[in-house]
Order: sequence, then C-alpha cells, then structure tokens
Amino acid sequence: MDRLDRQELDLMADARPLRAAVVGAGYWGPNLARNFKSGPDWELAGIVDRDLGRAAKLAAAYGVPAFESVDELLDTAEIDAVAIATPAHTHHGIALTALRAGKHVLVEKPLADSRVNGLEMVEEAEERGLVLMADHTYCYTPAVLKIRELIADGSLGEILFIDSVRINLGLVQPDVDVFWDLAPHDLSIVDFILPGGLRPLEVSAHGADPLGTGRASVGHLTFALPNDAMAHVHVNWLSPTKIRQLVVGGSRRTLVWDDLNPQQRLSVYDRGVSLDRQSRSAADQKASAISYRLGDTWSPALPEHEALAQMVAEFASSIWQQRPARTSGASGLRVLSVLEAVSMSLSADGQSSAVKGNEPQLEGSR
Amino acid sequence: MDRLDRQELDLMADARPLRAAVVGAGYWGPNLARNFKSGPDWELAGIVDRDLGRAAKLAAAYGVPAFESVDELLDTAEIDAVAIATPAHTHHGIALTALRAGKHVLVEKPLADSRVNGLEMVEEAEERGLVLMADHTYCYTPAVLKIRELIADGSLGEILFIDSVRINLGLVQPDVDVFWDLAPHDLSIVDFILPGGLRPLEVSAHGADPLGTGRASVGHLTFALPNDAMAHVHVNWLSPTKIRQLVVGGSRRTLVWDDLNPQQRLSVYDRGVSLDRQSRSAADQKASAISYRLGDTWSPALPEHEALAQMVAEFASSIWQQRPARTSGASGLRVLSVLEAVSMSLSADGQSSAVKGNEPQLEGSR
Amino acid sequence: MDRLDRQELDLMADARPLRAAVVGAGYWGPNLARNFKSGPDWELAGIVDRDLGRAAKLAAAYGVPAFESVDELLDTAEIDAVAIATPAHTHHGIALTALRAGKHVLVEKPLADSRVNGLEMVEEAEERGLVLMADHTYCYTPAVLKIRELIADGSLGEILFIDSVRINLGLVQPDVDVFWDLAPHDLSIVDFILPGGLRPLEVSAHGADPLGTGRASVGHLTFALPNDAMAHVHVNWLSPTKIRQLVVGGSRRTLVWDDLNPQQRLSVYDRGVSLDRQSRSAADQKASAISYRLGDTWSPALPEHEALAQMVAEFASSIWQQRPARTSGASGLRVLSVLEAVSMSLSADGQSSAVKGNEPQLEGSR
Amino acid sequence: MDRLDRQELDLMADARPLRAAVVGAGYWGPNLARNFKSGPDWELAGIVDRDLGRAAKLAAAYGVPAFESVDELLDTAEIDAVAIATPAHTHHGIALTALRAGKHVLVEKPLADSRVNGLEMVEEAEERGLVLMADHTYCYTPAVLKIRELIADGSLGEILFIDSVRINLGLVQPDVDVFWDLAPHDLSIVDFILPGGLRPLEVSAHGADPLGTGRASVGHLTFALPNDAMAHVHVNWLSPTKIRQLVVGGSRRTLVWDDLNPQQRLSVYDRGVSLDRQSRSAADQKASAISYRLGDTWSPALPEHEALAQMVAEFASSIWQQRPARTSGASGLRVLSVLEAVSMSLSADGQSSAVKGNEPQLEGSR
Repeated sequence: MDRLDRQELDLMADARPLRAAVVGAGYWGPNLARNFKSGPDWELAGIVDRDLGRAAKLAAAYGVPAFESVDELLDTAEIDAVAIATPAHTHHGIALTALRAGKHVLVEKPLADSRVNGLEMVEEAEERGLVLMADHTYCYTPAVLKIRELIADGSLGEILFIDSVRINLGLVQPDVDVFWDLAPHDLSIVDFILPGGLRPLEVSAHGADPLGTGRASVGHLTFALPNDAMAHVHVNWLSPTKIRQLVVGGSRRTLVWDDLNPQQRLSVYDRGVSLDRQSRSAADQKASAISYRLGDTWSPALPEHEALAQMVAEFASSIWQQRPARTSGASGLRVLSVLEAVSMSLSADGQSSAVKGNEPQLEGSR
Repeated sequence: MDRLDRQELDLMADARPLRAAVVGAGYWGPNLARNFKSGPDWELAGIVDRDLGRAAKLAAAYGVPAFESVDELLDTAEIDAVAIATPAHTHHGIALTALRAGKHVLVEKPLADSRVNGLEMVEEAEERGLVLMADHTYCYTPAVLKIRELIADGSLGEILFIDSVRINLGLVQPDVDVFWDLAPHDLSIVDFILPGGLRPLEVSAHGADPLGTGRASVGHLTFALPNDAMAHVHVNWLSPTKIRQLVVGGSRRTLVWDDLNPQQRLSVYDRGVSLDRQSRSAADQKASAISYRLGDTWSPALPEHEALAQMVAEFASSIWQQRPARTSGASGLRVLSVLEAVSMSLSADGQSSAVKGNEPQLEGSR
Repeated sequence: MDRLDRQELDLMADARPLRAAVVGAGYWGPNLARNFKSGPDWELAGIVDRDLGRAAKLAAAYGVPAFESVDELLDTAEIDAVAIATPAHTHHGIALTALRAGKHVLVEKPLADSRVNGLEMVEEAEERGLVLMADHTYCYTPAVLKIRELIADGSLGEILFIDSVRINLGLVQPDVDVFWDLAPHDLSIVDFILPGGLRPLEVSAHGADPLGTGRASVGHLTFALPNDAMAHVHVNWLSPTKIRQLVVGGSRRTLVWDDLNPQQRLSVYDRGVSLDRQSRSAADQKASAISYRLGDTWSPALPEHEALAQMVAEFASSIWQQRPARTSGASGLRVLSVLEAVSMSLSADGQSSAVKGNEPQLEGSR
Repeated sequence: MDRLDRQELDLMADARPLRAAVVGAGYWGPNLARNFKSGPDWELAGIVDRDLGRAAKLAAAYGVPAFESVDELLDTAEIDAVAIATPAHTHHGIALTALRAGKHVLVEKPLADSRVNGLEMVEEAEERGLVLMADHTYCYTPAVLKIRELIADGSLGEILFIDSVRINLGLVQPDVDVFWDLAPHDLSIVDFILPGGLRPLEVSAHGADPLGTGRASVGHLTFALPNDAMAHVHVNWLSPTKIRQLVVGGSRRTLVWDDLNPQQRLSVYDRGVSLDRQSRSAADQKASAISYRLGDTWSPALPEHEALAQMVAEFASSIWQQRPARTSGASGLRVLSVLEAVSMSLSADGQSSAVKGNEPQLEGSR
C-alpha cells in the first residue's frame, strides 16, 4: 500500500467500518470471512450459502447470521457490500442482484463465465456508481506490489518480454481447462504490473489433452506487448515439479520472481543486451551497435503481510474514496476477454484470435 | 554407447584407423581436430581453411598439412572422410564436392541453409552408399543417451508433453534469428530421444524482436506429438539467467534434465496423473477416473565422458558398419525441415505451417 | 507409524479416549491443545495457566474448563495425562506433582533445566509405572521417521559421520544460549535415529558471543560416535540465511535431509569411499585398498502428516501398551545430559567434558 | 588488482620481463608454466623435474630447456625466479638453494612440511631482500578479492563469525590427513581477507577416521577471532555432496560465498541482529537492546579472470616494487603454524593448542 492510500485511510479513521456479507461457504469463502472479521475496516455481517448447514457452521464461528439466499440476505441484513465466492457461472446473477440493491461487490476470479456477462456487471456498477472489484489476490502480495513499483518507476526500462510459468501436478478439473483454471492468475498479474494494463489485440494458444480428459491439461499462450515485446504463459497440470516463476525482461534491468523460493523471491538483474536505438535505421550497423551489461544482482527485502488482508483493505478504500479498485471490475473483464480469445484460438488450432474490447482504435485509452 | 556397438567396435580393433580432414579452422573446427587426433579410430589428415594462415596454425599444432581449399585437399591427401565446420551457407557446396569424391561427410549443425540443399546432400550420400552425419553433439552427452534409453525401455510410459527451455544472455547474431541459433539443439535432441524421431506435420512459432535488430531474439515454438501430446521450445537471447532444461512428461514417470546442475542433472519422478483409459468413452465419468501417484524421485548416476569423443567414435562406427549414423543426415534434414516451417510460421503471424517431408501419408515410415 | 503400531491401535479402537489437560497457554500449548482435540485417541479436558485469562481464552475456543494451577486441575478434573508447555525451570515441579497424582506426563523440550531434576522425573515415572514422554516433535516428522528406518534396515551401512546444521537469524533469548535453544532438536533427532541412541562419553563445545549478550549465539558441538565415527552440530542465531540440514554419512550410502527443500527433502546417495577392511592391518597397502562408488541418487516419497498429531498418537499408544514412548523421558534425559556437558565444555574453553550417565562401563546397555 | 597496482605496473611497462623456471612437472607445474608463458610480465626460462623425460615433455611444449635438478638449472640458465611445485617435504631444500643463489621464490601450498622449515625459508628471504611468495591461488579469485575489499571498506562492519565448509568425495591421501589437504585453502583465505591476518593464539581440532585409514578424513577446526568472534572450518573427504561455502557474518552485513553457484557466487545480506553497544554494561537491559534488520540482498557482479594469472602478475609486481607479495611467505608461515597446532590438538583429543609465533605479546604486529 503506498503512502497516499495510507494517508487517505488515516483520514477515514473516524469512518464507521463497512459491513460485508460473504456469499459461498466453500473453499475460498472462509478466507474472505476471516479477513472481513479481522481487519479494521470491516464488520462481517453474514454468510450466505445454498447449503444452509454449511453457511451456519461458518457463521457460527464468527457469531454472525447465516442465510440461504442472497435475496434473504438483502431483505434482512444491513450491509454495504457483498463478496462472492461461488462457482463462476453464478457470479453474474448474484452480482447483478447485489448491485441493483445498491451494494458494492467483490467477485472471486474469474469475474464471470463469459465476457458478455462480465461486461454487463461492469456497466451496471458504473451506472450506479458502485465499486465492482475482482479478487485478484496475487496482485496484493508483497512481490507483485514491488514488481509493479519497479516497472512504474522505470527501474526495468522498457519491457522486452514477459514469461510466466505456473506448472504443477494439478487437480484435473471437471469443468474448466488448464487455461481457465490457472492462467487468470498470470493474466491478472500482467494486467496489474503493466502501466497500460492487459490489452492485447489478439492472442494465440496451444494446448494438449494427452490423457483424453476432454479438455487441455497443458497449455501455452502468447500475445504481443507494446513496442514489439511479447508475453508467454505456460500452464500445466501434469508437471511433477512445481514452478511458479515470472520473468519480466526490460531494457535496463530484468526481474525474476520465484514464488517458491522464500529466501530470495525477487531478483533484479542489472544485466542485459542493449541496442543503440539511433542506429536502428542503419541496418548494416546493427550488430556492432549491440552491447552487453553484466552488472550486480539485487534482491529487495519484501514486507511480510497477508495478500488477502491488503485486498480487503483496498476494497474498503476504493468504496470510501469512490474510485475504482486497483483490481477493478474492468481489470477482471480484461482477463475474461483474453480467456475467451484463448478458447477461440485453441479451437482454431492455435490461430491468433482477436480479443474483444481491445479493438485497435481503442488502444491506449483505459 | 550400448553393448552392441562396443562388441562391434571390438571386432573392428584390427582395422586401420580412418583418416579425416577438418574443413574450417574457426570456433568449432579445433574441437573436431582434437577429437580426431586423440581417439583410437581416427587419424587426423589435414586442416582446410580459406584463411591459409589460420589453417596452418591449427595444422602445425597437430603436425598435419594445411590446405587452402577442399579441392586441394582432395587432390593431395589420402582421406576417408571430411568434417565440415564452416558457415551454414557453405555446407552444401563442400559436402557435395566431398561426397562426389567418395568421402564420408560429417556436418556441423544446421545441416544446410535450406531444406532443399540438405535434401540434395542426403540423396547424394544415399546414392553413393556414403555416411552423411549431422554433428548433433548434445545427443552424445551422457544425459541425453540416458533419456533416450529411459524412453525406449518404457520407463516413462507414453509421452504426454515435452518442454525445452534454452535461455541465456546470448550474442545477438548478425545473420540468424534465435530459433536458427538455439533451437537446432532442442530439435535434434527431440529427434534423438523419440522412438519415432522428429516428425511433426506442422509447427507454430511466435517470436519477438523488441530491440529492433531485424530478427527474433525471443521465441516460442510448439508442435503436436503422437497421441495428442505436445512439445514446446522456448529460446531466448535476452534472459539474464541461464536455463537449459528439458522436461519429458510421461504416463508412468516424468523426467527433468537440468543441464546446469552438475550435482543432479537428471531426475526421474515417479509421480503423475493417470486416467483409466477404459473410461475414455464414458465422458461423464472422466473426473472420477483420474488418479494421482506420488512416488519416489530417482537420479541416475551418469558416466563422465566427452560428448564429442563419442560422436567421432560413432562416425567411425557407422562407416565401418556401413549403416546410417545415429544422428544421420536424415535427422539433420528433419531438424532443417522444422526450422524452415518455423520461419514460415513466424512470417505468418504464428499460423501453423506444414513441415515439408512430413506430409500425413508419410507418417510412420522412417 | 509402522504397521505394528497401527495394528495395535486398531485393537484399541474400542477403548475410550484418554483425557489430557494442557499446562501452559503460551506459544506451544495451543498447538498441543489443538492436537488433543482433533485426534481420535484423546479428549481435551482442560487448560491450565497462571495467567487465568490466557487459560480461559484458549479453553473457551475448545469448550473446556480453565484452571489457574495444576493443583486445582488435579482436584477438579478427571484426567489421565498432563502435557506441560511451560518454561523449562517449572517442568520438574509440575511433572512431579502430576506423576505423584498418578497422571502420565508429556513434557516440552528440554525435559528439565538440569540433569538431576530430569533424572528425578524419570525415576518417579518408572517407580509408578507411568509414561513420561519428551515432546521431541521433529522425531515424528515423515523425514526423521524415514531416516530412522533407513539406518535400522542397514541401507546406510555403518555410520561414518553425522553433521547437523541449524542456523538462522534467531531471537537472541534472554535466559538460554544458542546450544540450549536449538541443539535439543539436533540431539533428540540423533538419539532417535541411532539404534544405540545418543550416548557419547564426552562432548566438546565451542561458542562465541560476539554481540556481548552474555551467552553464546554461535556454537559448534562435536562428539564421538561408535566405530570411530563423529558427530558435529552447528547452531547459530546470527546467520542471515536459514539452513536446516542433516547429513548422515554411511559406509554404504549417505543421506542428506534438507528440511527447507519441500520438493526434495530427503536424498540418499549411493556414493562413497570404501576401504577393504581386511587390509586394515597392512598399513602400507592402505591407499590401494580405497575405492570409490558413484551410484544413483534416490529421493523417497514421504507421506504428508503433521508431526504433532503423530506424537500425540504415540503418547496414547505408549499409555495403552504400557511401554516407554518412542521419545521417552529417558531420551529427554540423554539430551539433557549432553546439554549439561556442553555447558561445562564451553566454560572450560572447549575442553572435552564427560557426559554424566554415559560412563564407559554403561556403554552399550540401554 | 586495485588501481594503485595497475598504475605502478604501467610505470614498469618498460622493464624487461622477468625470467622464471618451474620446478616440478607433475600436476600443478604445467599450470604455472602456462601462466608464466602467457602473461606480459614473465618469460618462461626452463622446467626442472627429477624425471627428466617428464620435464622434457613439458619444456618442449613451450620451447624451453629442461633440467634434471635445481643445481643444473642454477648453473646453466639466467633466471630471476623459481616456482616450486614439488611434494611438500622438498619445498624447504629447493627454496633455500634458490634463495641462496639470489633467486625470488614462489612455493605451492603448503609452504613447507613443518613450521620450523617454513620459518627458515622466510628468514632467509628476508635477509637477502628476496621475494618469497606462497601460491595461495584462491586469494586471487574475483570472489575472494571482492570479499577482502568488502571487509576492508567496512561494508560488513565488525566480524562476528566465519564459517567455511569444504566437503566433497575426496581422494583419501596416502600421506596427509584431510586438514593438511584441504584446510590450507580455508586458512589462507581467512588470512587474506582479515585486515589483521590469521593470528589465532590457539586452535582446537576434532577429527575422525571412520574408515581406519590411519588419518582423519572428517575434520572440524575452531579458533577465536578478535572481538569475541569465532571461526570454524569443516573439511570432509567422505561427503557425497560437494559444498564450498564461506560465510562471513558481520555486525552490519553478512556475506555468503557459494563457489559452486556460478550464477550467484557472492551474496551480501543486509540483515542481522544488532545490539546497542552502550547497553553492554547494563546486563539486565540486554534483551531489550537487541534489534533485527531485514534488508535487501545484493550480489555484486564479479569480473571474469583466471586467478593463477593474477597470482603470477602479483609475483612480478612484488619483485619490481621490492615489497612482500600479497600472499607472502609470512602468510604461508601463518597457515603452517595453524596446521601444526591443528595436528597437536588432534593428538590431544581436541584440546586447544597454542599456535607458535602467535604468542600473546606479538598480537597486533604484522
């Protein structure tokens, strides 16, 4: 959290805490409930689950009421916001209901099960002046916050390439492929750290289903970045070794985030290849204009904090300040748009597929 | 080298050594000269280089004559074979001259500068009953020989995916892109370890040239493998960290080769995801038919030997036994065919491009 | 847990759960309480703390009564066992009170603050036929259980050396030095994995207090093992990098446990130096009788279970079966005896100090 | 090499190269010969070996004469210096002969086979105003030169502890134990990096010979450093894993040199524990005066150069400038003195043994 936010939060110190209910008491809901309960900005106001027993059990642990439906919640409880941690195909319906009742909404990734549904959610929130936030938790880890800062302040220079690898022996999912399961993490991080956000015109995806499960379990995804740079994402459920690594190659420095190395999560290499840009036009002099830097490596100390607590604080902050959240509904929609283009490319044998909403004429505006 | 070869070589023990000349006294030629000089199978018979001074200096170190041209060599010296270590665009001319003079030929990678030239070399050698061998040195490392063995004996089961990463701060080349510079290593290894060799029908390549050098310096390459499996190769000249890693995912076990970890180069994981194949047809039961194995990891001890010495021994062995070399001209041609398709895919914005010579009707024949 | 225990536990399945109270609601007590609560063998019967508020808070979370003193607990509650998680200097008094009231006792490490106090506890428990168990939690981790098994079944051969490193930026303690803080872990592990237990005749310790805190913050400890082998322990509060590594060198294989590498915690190297023992007497032939093995490396898969749950199960099992616990009071006493000798060696400038209770004539008996 | 030396060497540019002969054509001699041949400061003038054939073979490769004895060399050739790479027990005799003939002398480690012999060599050189240099090659690696610099400029603050681990599956030597084989490396490095050099008053050593070879193959060595700090060295021939790691803990920063990690050989941690020194006297306030720093990690880029070339250049430089070499005979003698005390401690069951020449009253003078 940067200094400005902190200052503003201090101003808000007198404000009463906001009241949130969590919808969905399955895997992720309890984590949200715990953070709404423990932070200074929020009061937990209730738990909703179609399985009332499950809702009641979680609710009891925190001494709050349980509800069987969102309608029941909205009729009964006095709340400011709803946090949705239910299956993706239910996000659209629940979010619209909550927004139409004037509540701010936080949604687990992916924002919705289709771009068109996500777009409707974003527009509904905009019209009503409400906060719609995507729960891109990784973006609130100390490492990703630092990466965003290093790119923003020019430490890396111009981005040359991004490579993100997220592979592991994974649970083959019954309803989504490996792209929809894992790539939202990589894509939301790219959206968060790039000053211009995630706005490829088209993407190309290649996948394989060697076990014959009916959907891809190994996948590679590439798209262009501004200035002739490129991004690549490797997602894989079949790897016996676990790798979670992001490389951001820059013209000044290159950064490697190894999330499984707690002793040196982030390394910044002052090494690289550089080209004297003035000689770009003089084609025959190119080779001689390339030079190498072999400088020091630096690993910044990272604060220790729980990402989810930061995310929940940002939700409160964006409501108080009446501004889009850092991981706004719009960012969730950008991720969704890329995922839809991935599916199209996959079914077209890897052919580049246009990303809706990122048509050329719109480029640059955010 | 397996038992059979050893036995055969023993039979050859009485044979006189073969005589080889090295063409090209630049970077790689001296390594070839040293190995022809030191092994039991060969006599070094001369060094050729257009720069006669360079040829003479290398020749003097080994007490052999120097030549300014291949014609001069062929007119003067009594030799059995020629090893070519000159720039790629000269391979075709030199190899044809040597083959037409009845000499066996070893060629540095890539085999030639175009598929059609490589094909002519392969056909010329076949017609004359001469050995044409590709110098795919990596294939003779202890690690790759072991990988080939583990796939051949069924230790890995059916191949599910292959992922090869070869990235480093590299010398941006004046005349080739990162695919032609680095991917021949990965492709020749895949050709060597797969029982069916490297025979994709089509490939898809994505590259970037963020420094504006006129050719790709970051690249990703994907192609299908038999049984719905897939291969991916990542080559990159701009990475500040060096990675040379090959993962071969199998239905029984998965293998990771980390060439930069001398203490544990090869790891075989007895872990994975498996699907009861009988339930493949019953789509609705798929999820339940998936199971996980979390077994031991095993790192086989590898013998220590120089790959180039093994390669030179295989060259002699294939000549004596009148058989194709393990890394034959045909294998060099398969690598070349994929590289040409890569270039076509790159210029077609990543669209899949057919690999010549691997047309569907030819699949399965080798 | 091996097969025998499992079988026996199955026989016990009809037995009523045992009832335990936890004394000490500080750092470790809550972990014990959670495990007594969640396992099948135990019922949590109460929490004791001199700070009644702290006791009450923990007790409330589990719905059990809180007590201000052990006397109050013993007067009021019906219990089988007491688990002590209070400062070391209070262990002796609390344990004797509980034992004299006929309760089984589990004690956090170290067993007591002096050997003589620990000995009294062990003798009291023996006389009364009660279980006195040391909470050497590390011994119940999957890695240590496996190491014990590999030594017992002869996989490592004869032990040649043990090297244990436990270094980290640590909290300089107000009342104990780095040996008493960290070495109990290493010593209890050595006691657990060696068939003969931890029984050095003497130990030698070297420490330093470069910050002038009044006690050693860096320490090295060495002692002889049977058959001319040796053990070394390095404990250090001042290291910026965290290392927790145990090497057990054997005549057949050598084992490395790297507790901070979750992807390969245990490695067994089939490598080593061997000497033909028959040539031992022929001094001049020694060098020629030495040979090297460079075999495979093997990393056994380890089950995932919480060590503390296993420890609590072993406590129940030892009570039901009326046998010493695997980490018995006697083992806690052996650790304590070594720690006392360490302190003596430290104050004698590193001179070897005899370990009480391990006098030569007793060696070999257990 | 720092700026001053460079400048001075420039002044020497007009000087004629020095002439050196290498005595001993076994393992190390050829490396010395190659460096005397290739550097700008030296001319190689001859090779000496009792095995004249071996001398002749090496000499022929460089076009210099071969000699059967040092006497023959001194009678015949015009030389400035002699480099000795023969077995340790012959160093003393050869060095004295050369010094008495007015030649500068470079000696492979260890300086001699006993302290008294080493002392005689040092005194002879001093009396005659000749350079006697110890070939402590590690001290000229980029990593060790950087460590020396970081300690000298105060980057690490006050030294708190040094830990050096040098373990590997090693060739059990026929005539020396693991301390005399490996520890000269660690000790000469400590001597080189500490501003005050290696001057412990006493050392304590613990070793084991579990294979019954007649000498220690596992060893631990500890000694005090100024300001209540301590050093520890672990040498081991029986470890299946290779570790070469030096940790220098300082009051400001701590440094880790991992010689087997070419991608990050040197790491400087801006982390540590600190004590407000003013509160040292107030014993009861100690705990509260301790604080923790968790800062960045930094890995300086190291130049790539061959250590041996730097060493040979320093030999020339010290002769021209008529000053002791950086790794002088006196430093070789300090290492020898510690090794002798190690042997005494070993035979006294680990008891601290005084280091001759470092008697208290001499401390501080160099």
